[in-house]
Order: sequence, then C-alpha cells, then structure tokens
Amino acid sequence: MLESFFNPKSVAIIGASRTPNKLGYVIFENFIKGFGGKVYPVNVDTTPISGREVFPSVKKIPDKIDLAVIVIPAAAVPKVLKECVEKKIESVVIISAGFAEIGKEGKMLEEKCKKIIKGSKTRVLGPNVIGVYDSSTNVDTLFLSRERMGRPKQGSISFISQSGAVGSTILDWLSEEKIGITKFISYGNAMDVNESDLIEFLGRDEKTKVIVVYLEGIKSEGKKFIETLKRVTKIKPVIILKSGKTDKGIKAVASHTGSLAGSAKIYSSVFKQTGVIEANSWEELFDFARAFSQPVPKKNRVVIITDGGGFGVLATDECERQKLQLSEPSEKLKNSLKNKFPPYIILHNPIDLTGDATAERYRITMEECLRSGEYDGVIAITLFQVPTLEEKITEILIEMKKFKKPILCCATGGRFTKRLSSILEGNSIPVYPAPERAVRAFNSLVKYATWLKK
Amino acid sequence: MLESFFNPKSVAIIGASRTPNKLGYVIFENFIKGFGGKVYPVNVDTTPISGREVFPSVKKIPDKIDLAVIVIPAAAVPKVLKECVEKKIESVVIISAGFAEIGKEGKMLEEKCKKIIKGSKTRVLGPNVIGVYDSSTNVDTLFLSRERMGRPKQGSISFISQSGAVGSTILDWLSEEKIGITKFISYGNAMDVNESDLIEFLGRDEKTKVIVVYLEGIKSEGKKFIETLKRVTKIKPVIILKSGKTDKGIKAVASHTGSLAGSAKIYSSVFKQTGVIEANSWEELFDFARAFSQPVPKKNRVVIITDGGGFGVLATDECERQKLQLSEPSEKLKNSLKNKFPPYIILHNPIDLTGDATAERYRITMEECLRSGEYDGVIAITLFQVPTLEEKITEILIEMKKFKKPILCCATGGRFTKRLSSILEGNSIPVYPAPERAVRAFNSLVKYATWLKK
Repeated sequence: MLESFFNPKSVAIIGASRTPNKLGYVIFENFIKGFGGKVYPVNVDTTPISGREVFPSVKKIPDKIDLAVIVIPAAAVPKVLKECVEKKIESVVIISAGFAEIGKEGKMLEEKCKKIIKGSKTRVLGPNVIGVYDSSTNVDTLFLSRERMGRPKQGSISFISQSGAVGSTILDWLSEEKIGITKFISYGNAMDVNESDLIEFLGRDEKTKVIVVYLEGIKSEGKKFIETLKRVTKIKPVIILKSGKTDKGIKAVASHTGSLAGSAKIYSSVFKQTGVIEANSWEELFDFARAFSQPVPKKNRVVIITDGGGFGVLATDECERQKLQLSEPSEKLKNSLKNKFPPYIILHNPIDLTGDATAERYRITMEECLRSGEYDGVIAITLFQVPTLEEKITEILIEMKKFKKPILCCATGGRFTKRLSSILEGNSIPVYPAPERAVRAFNSLVKYATWLKK
Repeated sequence: MLESFFNPKSVAIIGASRTPNKLGYVIFENFIKGFGGKVYPVNVDTTPISGREVFPSVKKIPDKIDLAVIVIPAAAVPKVLKECVEKKIESVVIISAGFAEIGKEGKMLEEKCKKIIKGSKTRVLGPNVIGVYDSSTNVDTLFLSRERMGRPKQGSISFISQSGAVGSTILDWLSEEKIGITKFISYGNAMDVNESDLIEFLGRDEKTKVIVVYLEGIKSEGKKFIETLKRVTKIKPVIILKSGKTDKGIKAVASHTGSLAGSAKIYSSVFKQTGVIEANSWEELFDFARAFSQPVPKKNRVVIITDGGGFGVLATDECERQKLQLSEPSEKLKNSLKNKFPPYIILHNPIDLTGDATAERYRITMEECLRSGEYDGVIAITLFQVPTLEEKITEILIEMKKFKKPILCCATGGRFTKRLSSILEGNSIPVYPAPERAVRAFNSLVKYATWLKK
C-alpha cells in the first residue's frame, strides 16, 4: 500500500522552484534528471520552470498523480494537503518543517493535517523529513546537493531513519564505500506513516533483503511495533540502532524528535523477544547489515584464517567475548593441511598462514575447513600488504561462496587494499577494517540464525 | 643510546641484493632512494649493485658504520653479527626469521647471537622483524613495496609493534589517512632491545609526543616494564593495545610470538597503576593517539555541539557510558546564546544548531562555551552535508585552538566530507567517523589528565 512512495508513475512537486539552492529547486531537479515517470511542478507562481508548464494546484493537473512532494512553508500545508486528498493522491511526502517539533502551535498544525487525511486513502510521510530515496526508480526527495551528499548504488538493504541528518550522513558514507541500498526513508514526525508501517511494508518488499533502522523512540503503539517485528524478523533480518539509551541520552531525544525514548532495558528486551539484531553503535548498524549479504550459518563454529598473527589474536579475543566457538581443527583436518604446507604454518584456530601466505594457501585452507563439516563459517583476515599474496586471492574468496557458508573478511590499509576490498564487496563478500568488527558482524549472523530456529 | 637506529650517518645492508623482490633488494632500494647518509651494500658476491661497490664483509668497509641491517638466512647470521661487533657497529637490525619463533633449533641460534653481543656496545633489534621506519631521516628497513604499503608522513606519534603484520598494516592505513608519525619500530623476538628499552628511548626523544604500543606479551622483566612506564607516562602519554586477553587469545599469542600473554586482569591493573591509556581495540589505538594532538583538558566537563540531533544523542549516550560530565549551560550562557540564534536552536547539552546551521553559529557557540569557563573541551559534530554550513567552518574550528582546550570533531560521509576533514586533520584537529569514537577519544584525554594530576 505504500508502494507509490517508491514506484509512482507520476509525481507532483508542490513548491517546485526556479531559484537554485531552494529545496523546491533541488528536489525538482532530482526528479527531472533521474526519475523515469512523469513530473509535474506545482507553484502559485505559474511561470514555466525549465520550459515546463507549472500548475497552480495539483487539482489542475490533467493526469492521475501517484506521489506528491510538499516543499512549502508549514502554514500553507493544510490547504494543499486537502487538495491532494481531493485529487485522491495515494502518497504524500511533507518535507516542510515547523510542525510538532517546534512546540504547541506546530502541534496544532500537525493535528489539522491528520484530520484532513482521516478516512481518505492518502498516506503521509512526514512532516519534517528528508523523505525517500529509491535507488532503482530514482525517487529522490533528498534536498541535499549531490556535491555534498552522494547517493548509494542499488543494493538489497533498506534503511529507515527517524533522523534526517543521521540518514543523509549514512547515505553519503554508503555511496563513498560503494555499499548499495534499495530504499531509504526518513519518517520524521510520523504524523501518519510510522516505523511499524515501514517495517511491515519492507518485510513484504521483494527487493529488500535486510531492514536497517535508526530509532530514537517509537511513534507507533507498542503492541503494533512488537507484533510487526515478530512477524517480519521471521522473513528477513531487522537491525536496529536505538539511540537515547542513557538518562542524558533520553533527555536529548526528547529535545530532538520529541519521542519518548523509554528505558534502554525495555527496548533491549523487546528487541530480544522479537528477534531484532541490536546494533550498539553507529558503525555496527551497517557492519551488521553488510554481513547479511552472506548466508546465515547453521551454528556458531567459526574458523579464523589469517596471514598476520597479531590480527588473528585480536579476532580470537573478540570471538571469545562474543562467545563464538573457536574449536581446534580435528587431527584429521590438521594432518591433511600439514601435508600441503611448510612446517611453520600454525594449525590451530586461528590458522596462521604467516607473512609469506599465498592465495593458494588460502584456497586449500578454506576448501578443507569448509568441506570438513567442522566449521559453520570463516573469518578470513587477508592483509593484502603481504608481498607473496597474489591479487587472485579475491577470485579464490569469491569461489568459496560455493560452500554456502558465511565468509567475512578483514583487511585494512591504503590504496592497494581498498582496490582489492572493493572487488570483494562488489561480489557480496563484506570486508571490515578491524578484526573486532568482522567478528561482531559474524556474531550478528549467528544471532539471527538462532532466532530463526526458535 | 638507540639513536643510531633512527639517525645513522652510515648504513651497511648485509645481504643487499640485485634480484628484484628479494628482501635485500627492497631494503637496499629504500635506502638508496630516501636516506641522506652513506649506504654500503654487503654481499659475499661482490658484483657491483646499481654501479656501487659491494663489500664482502662489513669489516672491509673503509668507513665507520652506525647501523647494519642484516637480511641473510638465519644460519649465517652469527658470523656476520660477530663481524658487526668487531667493527664496533652500535645498532644492528636482524630482519631474518628462523630463530626462537620456529622452536628449539632457532632458539639455540638466537642464544648464540646473544652471546656474541654480550659485553659489547652493539645493540640488536630483532630477529624476525620488519624493523625501523623514521619519517624524517628515511631509515626504512620495511621490506614491503610502496605499491602495497604506503609510508606515513612526518608527525609526532611513535609506534612500537611486537607484530610486524600489525605494524605494517597500520602504517599503510596511516599513510592513506594522512596521519603522521615520527618513528616506527617492530621488535619481534626482542633478543636484545625490548619494549621497555624502546619506551624509555622514545620517552626522551624530542620528536615523539605520543607513544603507541601494540603488545602481545612483555619481553622485558616485569619490574623494569612497570618502572619505565611510570617514568615515561609522567612525560608523555603511552597508549597500549594488549592483545591475547581471553583464554583462547592467550593461546593464540603463545603460537604467534611465543610470549606469555598473562592474564588480562594483571595487564589492565599494571596499565592503571602506571598511567598507561589502554586501547580496547585496533581502532582505539590510533583514535586515542590522534586525540593527543589536542591539549589535555583540566577536568571532564564537555559540551557537545552538533548540527544533527541524532548524532548528538549517540554522542550523549557514549559520554554517559564513559562518565564524562555533560553539564547544562548556565542560564547566563543560555541567555547570551539565545539572543544570537533563531528560537528553534536547542540550548541544552548537546547544543543542537540544527540542520540549517552556519559556520558562524558554530563560532559563536564555541567561543561562548569555551570562554565561559563552564567546559573543559568540545566535541564538535560537524555534518558537512548540511547545505547552509559554509566551508569556512574548518577555519573557525582551527581558530578555536586559541582557547587551548581540546576540540575533537566527528564528521562522516563521502568525498566532500573527506576533503574538509583532511584540512582539520592537517591542523591537528582530529576528526572521527563515528560519534562514539570521538567521545571515547575525548575520554582518553581526560584519563591522561587525571593521571598527570596524581
């Protein structure tokens, strides 16, 4: 039912502007340049924009409209929203700020808008949002210029953010890291569409394989929120970063989005009950999301394969903290590997292929470990600086996907490392810059696997 | 006394080679290209290399030698080491592997080497090391090609690593991030020079402002280690990442460097007693080190200034966890700011300058907060994607250094953000990609300040 927010045939930009840098200009330009459907500018001033006819009201557009984007001062919103309802527009994004977030007066204005859509088929996202970005249809209401904020490529992660700034910053970072997404939604004041609606919708969306949420406090009813999560997490992973977890953090949330942040304990226990994977920091949110480009493991038996002993030790420490099982290779497996390697290779877990490791050594080790049935997945630490490690290591890692067990990589460094890492990322093998982060991401897969078995 | 490892006038490369990709070739080339002093190749095969006379032994070089770098098979090392002693060479780096780390036979070889230098003035770094990198003299024994591993620019951090792979990976990453260092030392088996000697030396080194250590297990006596730390931490900060902290991690260390990792608790309590700042992950090691390019705060009262509410909340949560004091601005300070800002600016702590923040708003807020005496430092969250935030924000942040209070930044994103961040980094204002990391880095400054007051 929210489909037309992401895949409309026709869009009206209410408040489209001819003045560069105005929000109504940036958004109109986004649609003109990227969007495949029809775009109608609406403005009380009907001077043509970029040679296009401007309509004084949506009601004057001689076409069905699926999505309206409102970028006009708050006070004028109720009037145009009413016209959208009369025009039977299914989806409306209210970008405009100046509603509940500014206090009593804004709250009244927001209530007025709620009444206008009541009983109609019009659904509203916002107000006070940066809105929607869909990487395949190019619906893009983000009013930040592409110079300052890149847009991520197509992928299978969908991302819901209560905060516009957190959302846009992460999108920019994703575009730089070449991590793809399918849909992004900032839902701001959530006068109508809220986090539960969006999670429900994305749960059914075929393009979405993983749902990522930045949440300050829920806007929907607790019961609905819990039931939605229980249902959706059985179909696909939902990863949530809840901010406002400490006393001062809760206060800060109240000033920011006016949400009731509630106690950290309540949220964490809800997340546990409903199979949500909780991220505990900004970085974990997408560290975990990226892990799900790999299959979910059967159990928690992991083997660490490294060409740098120190990194192996750091990963081991984190595995222990996360209670991942680092069992020793069996005698049979050890003997089989021993016969193929020089004597100084360390055949414990971590398996240390040492500083003269070759791609072939990785291939043999991964093949034998994954075929043995002794492990449910691999953390492959591939320090590409090692002079003997050929570039074909990337092909070998990609080839190992045939075992249908999760392989997460850790590599860090400069240009050379970044080049090889992006080949892996492009082939759905996530690469983490720190051993601890790779391990925690692996653990998020294990957590989800455990939930699915329940 | 270790000075000639870093600033020799003349260097002998024992095992210099004319075969590309051999370690003795890469190291010789490094010196030929970058080092300002005299370089003498030594090899049993005396065919000239790059037109230079090759000496069959250091003893045949008609010059005083300050530093010898040995890159020959382990078995041949004792003989040439003896010649180095006879030649009265002060500093010797033994790159060669195949000593204590491979077992009994290697251990005997290492003991033999120890006997050779006993009573002499020759000090040995290694064996089994990647050695030394000095960014100002260009002593560079790292045998990894510059294509795969960048070299960091000049700076004021010195970095000691027990593991060569951890060391070289971090150097490569530092070069990419444009973070400078002064000296890097990998000390491997530490048959002579160990972590205590190096910390002691760097404590007195004028170019070194911060000492960073990656440690698996100490090679020096416990008492010496503790006393050295106590002395040096009073002069400059020492940040240590100790790996091998869990049961399995300790076992992994034993297979890796043969060190006794000891219990995590013992190490952590030693670090507390001696004023060491302990990093708990790979990333914290340099997150903390970079913070010390800023002054140390008097107390722990921090103000968070942000243009993105969500990031402010995340930083607040982390401040609470780290027990940093987030006191509210006084009524006086609030009123003074209120008069200068639009009504929707949120004047608590965090101070949220909102999504239409300007550089001037940051200037006013930082000036007034730092001048008020109510805060000991600032965490400035500057999301550069905000369209109204002018590029001169970097100049304003740099100007604020006049208050001599620590300012740590948080910004994350793509190309635009990276460009502005690197201007700040170049002016000694560290920028962190996640709010939690900025807060923990600030806390490392507070911890050190507390130690200095003891």
